[in-house]
Amino acid sequence: MGLILQKGRFITLEGAEGVGKSTNLNFIAELLESQDVPCVVTREPGGTPLAERIRTILLDKAESDMHAMTELLLMFAARKQHVESLIRPALAAGKWVICDRFTDSTYAYQGYGRELDLATIETLENLCLGSFRPDLTLVLDLPVGRGRDRVAARGEKDRFESESDKFFDKVREGFLQLATRHPRYRVVDASQPLETVQAAIAGIIAELGSGSHG
Amino acid sequence: MGLILQKGRFITLEGAEGVGKSTNLNFIAELLESQDVPCVVTREPGGTPLAERIRTILLDKAESDMHAMTELLLMFAARKQHVESLIRPALAAGKWVICDRFTDSTYAYQGYGRELDLATIETLENLCLGSFRPDLTLVLDLPVGRGRDRVAARGEKDRFESESDKFFDKVREGFLQLATRHPRYRVVDASQPLETVQAAIAGIIAELGSGSHG
Repeated sequence: MGLILQKGRFITLEGAEGVGKSTNLNFIAELLESQDVPCVVTREPGGTPLAERIRTILLDKAESDMHAMTELLLMFAARKQHVESLIRPALAAGKWVICDRFTDSTYAYQGYGRELDLATIETLENLCLGSFRPDLTLVLDLPVGRGRDRVAARGEKDRFESESDKFFDKVREGFLQLATRHPRYRVVDASQPLETVQAAIAGIIAELGSGSHG
Repeated sequence: MGLILQKGRFITLEGAEGVGKSTNLNFIAELLESQDVPCVVTREPGGTPLAERIRTILLDKAESDMHAMTELLLMFAARKQHVESLIRPALAAGKWVICDRFTDSTYAYQGYGRELDLATIETLENLCLGSFRPDLTLVLDLPVGRGRDRVAARGEKDRFESESDKFFDKVREGFLQLATRHPRYRVVDASQPLETVQAAIAGIIAELGSGSHG
């Protein structure tokens, strides 16, 4: 019963469409809960009522003439609200936060995909987040065609899902490039059988957990 | 019948709440129309369907826990869309654009009012707009108490109008500071009788018009 409060860990799941983020997000949450680690599952864009209002605009196929820079600013507006109102308070309370997409998706989609200047995104990241970054970023990687087949099976596509295969080739390449930048990134081959993918994820989470007691 | 197309002029009206922006915006539009100058009247935040969706969020009193940086990013998201989809095309077509608020309101409200770093706002302004600035910015100045009495008479207040007198003192001071930075700013004493205010505005507009033929 020491006075030192254990700060939570911030885990983000990244990847293009249909790579299995939701399935594996739930797997991680159940894994942590089975070990009595308090955790919060959330997503971007969104995660708070205000950020979800911004998400509705961002995903709306009717907004077909949205300027790429407008899209970028809306992403960071939602993110700032999410980080300050939900993510930081949860981590401060000792909870682990598992988030479906975060700033790496902004680099991959608006930077690599829409070809906005990566330095512009970095400027916004620093203005909004200071030095706040995830503790672990899992990049689920899958050939674009396979991911898109899964999305097609879900029914109506949103504004991003409606982009071309060429766009998603650039997004996938973006995630793989980003993952080389820092040891917090771990790439998981999502084309493997689900049990193999989840065994890999469980191993990575165990490493992070043991680090928290180090 | 030369081949040189006359580019339009971009006029912004600025000032705190209740200084008479709408009345004088309409006065300028009628003045220009009486001289057969094609003009477009618009406003910020807003001016396009997407930017108006963002405005709805920004003005919503239910969003009482909106972070100041989220507010700032939403303002620029709406502005980028407005500039690229409406303002620049209208100016390129030779129209004059008269806009109720623009970036100076962002400096005055989010900078001076909410005390966000002015350098952060300048970074966003340059990222979003490059060197694009108004040709003329009319700052309507009125003691805060008088402006707020006018707003109170209108009925229900929005999220900004609900701020304190102290907040609006900082906003007014912000506009007056901004107006010292560049000759494009012209401060008009809005406490004078309306005819006197409008005679002053008509004089300033005539100067700008004669400049366009110089």
